[in-house]
Amino acid sequence: MTITFEDIQKAHGRLLHHALETPLLSNYFLNQRLNAQVYIKAECLQHCGAFKFRGAYNRLVQLTDAEKKQGVVAFSSGNHAQGVALAAQLLNIPAIIVMPDDAPKVKLERTRAYGAEVISYNRQTESREAIAQELATSRKAVLVPSFDDPHIIAGQGTCGLELAAQLQKQQQQLEMLLSPAGGGGLIAGVSVAVKQAFPDCRIYAVEPDGFDDHGRSLQSGQREVNPQGGNSLCDALLSPSPGELTWAINQKNLCQGLVVTDDEVCHAISYAYHYLKLVVEPGGAVALAALLHQKIDIKGRHVGIILSGGNIDTALLMECLRQYPNP
Amino acid sequence: MTITFEDIQKAHGRLLHHALETPLLSNYFLNQRLNAQVYIKAECLQHCGAFKFRGAYNRLVQLTDAEKKQGVVAFSSGNHAQGVALAAQLLNIPAIIVMPDDAPKVKLERTRAYGAEVISYNRQTESREAIAQELATSRKAVLVPSFDDPHIIAGQGTCGLELAAQLQKQQQQLEMLLSPAGGGGLIAGVSVAVKQAFPDCRIYAVEPDGFDDHGRSLQSGQREVNPQGGNSLCDALLSPSPGELTWAINQKNLCQGLVVTDDEVCHAISYAYHYLKLVVEPGGAVALAALLHQKIDIKGRHVGIILSGGNIDTALLMECLRQYPNP
Repeated sequence: MTITFEDIQKAHGRLLHHALETPLLSNYFLNQRLNAQVYIKAECLQHCGAFKFRGAYNRLVQLTDAEKKQGVVAFSSGNHAQGVALAAQLLNIPAIIVMPDDAPKVKLERTRAYGAEVISYNRQTESREAIAQELATSRKAVLVPSFDDPHIIAGQGTCGLELAAQLQKQQQQLEMLLSPAGGGGLIAGVSVAVKQAFPDCRIYAVEPDGFDDHGRSLQSGQREVNPQGGNSLCDALLSPSPGELTWAINQKNLCQGLVVTDDEVCHAISYAYHYLKLVVEPGGAVALAALLHQKIDIKGRHVGIILSGGNIDTALLMECLRQYPNP
Repeated sequence: MTITFEDIQKAHGRLLHHALETPLLSNYFLNQRLNAQVYIKAECLQHCGAFKFRGAYNRLVQLTDAEKKQGVVAFSSGNHAQGVALAAQLLNIPAIIVMPDDAPKVKLERTRAYGAEVISYNRQTESREAIAQELATSRKAVLVPSFDDPHIIAGQGTCGLELAAQLQKQQQQLEMLLSPAGGGGLIAGVSVAVKQAFPDCRIYAVEPDGFDDHGRSLQSGQREVNPQGGNSLCDALLSPSPGELTWAINQKNLCQGLVVTDDEVCHAISYAYHYLKLVVEPGGAVALAALLHQKIDIKGRHVGIILSGGNIDTALLMECLRQYPNP
């Protein structure tokens, strides 16, 4: 099973007038500094502050009436949670979300504010999959995975469809694209859409230090698992390994993984605030961090990056601004 | 002399591929809170972090080759300064900018970074008009006014042209529009563009307390002047009175002025950060502040607001977030 360009076009039709068309920005100082033309897809401006609403809405809108009545269950560190909660609210579907008790407060609060029932668990000792599965069974609800699902992947792909269309409208090329990779749903969907428009575009998965499962999987040719016990500021990118469906796509479409540290991410968060006027969360800032810290040579190139989310706790943003006052 | 819809269309053609098409956002929580449909034009994402680049580029690109060689002079509290500096840089024109010595540091630094020569003055004791005029004469350079100029107004109007097109693409109406007003260039240009698409749209000028010259002028029917010695956080909106050209347009197109306090503006800055993931400066936040603090009844309405700029000093943003942690 794979996801085709047509699947993404259909998802785009379903999302029309529901998801936002996020802007493709560019910045004089960034281009000067990197000596390249960088296109910034600002998904932190999407509903719920992250691309996740796209996939969630595309999944939920296709449920049968009977399924809609029974409701949905999802597990998520926060952005998928909010995406499912808002999509459910808009479609009048009851939603239960299983979230780690150490998720950013802003993500927990917002998920509740969208009307979802939140059940929290301990990320170190409990299995969110097991909890969610049990809830789904007992309540006869549909389990909505956060990335390993064709409709979720196709929904996230609409971000790439927009990006390609926005570039074509400007009569621009795309030679390289950097996207965050957690479970790999965003980059999988986006890669299908972008490769259709720009077949030679090189697509890079950017991951936090200690969670470079995509990078290592691309090197070994099989799905690698991250060592346990690691930690990272990038709460949105802590999946243990690439998904099955997402990997089937990413294995073909991605060229390489890039790794960034927490400090590099903090620097990028401050940069986005100062120069782009955007609030970006750690997981959303990894692609920008990879460029600012020269993880690949982009000199003279047309390069796209996705800033995938903006749900950062204020204390952390302030710390980034204090640490990097002149990024 | 007035500005026509065709002038704005022509400006739009000149700005194509130079200015950004800024997004028209909407937010679930804002709509719920206000019980209305609010469309947010995020001009803080424009080049230089403010709409001012639009007018500046439209003005400078139309200079003759001889004029371009002699260079330009502008005076500004900061956003027009940056807009002129970047437009000049892109068009290879020397630029001198006269700026108040108490302008936000970020605005002073960026203007220099765009390659302009900055000359500072004391806002309480010196006349920026006189300084700029003298420089223009001695260097045979063109003086680029910040609002009272047909090409500047037409350039700012492209923000309204985009807004109207974005709404029409979504098959939406616009019943009310709130825009910041300093000299009135933005709201004048935008009003011409928006009235073309939505003739019945009611357009409101939002101003800081103590600088409500547009509001009072609309009441009295003539250009009123603000009392001297006032102060406001909204450094971008401190013009003493409506411009001549801008007033000729605004007198016809605007319905009323709305006034917001510094505290209301700080609250709106925190709201934009928390919910919209946008960095907004005080002058850019007045329209949002007017809605959040119910300066008019918008229940059930389709309402547009312009967030006109994002160039805020970090210390002030942090203060707003501290003061209003849960906006």
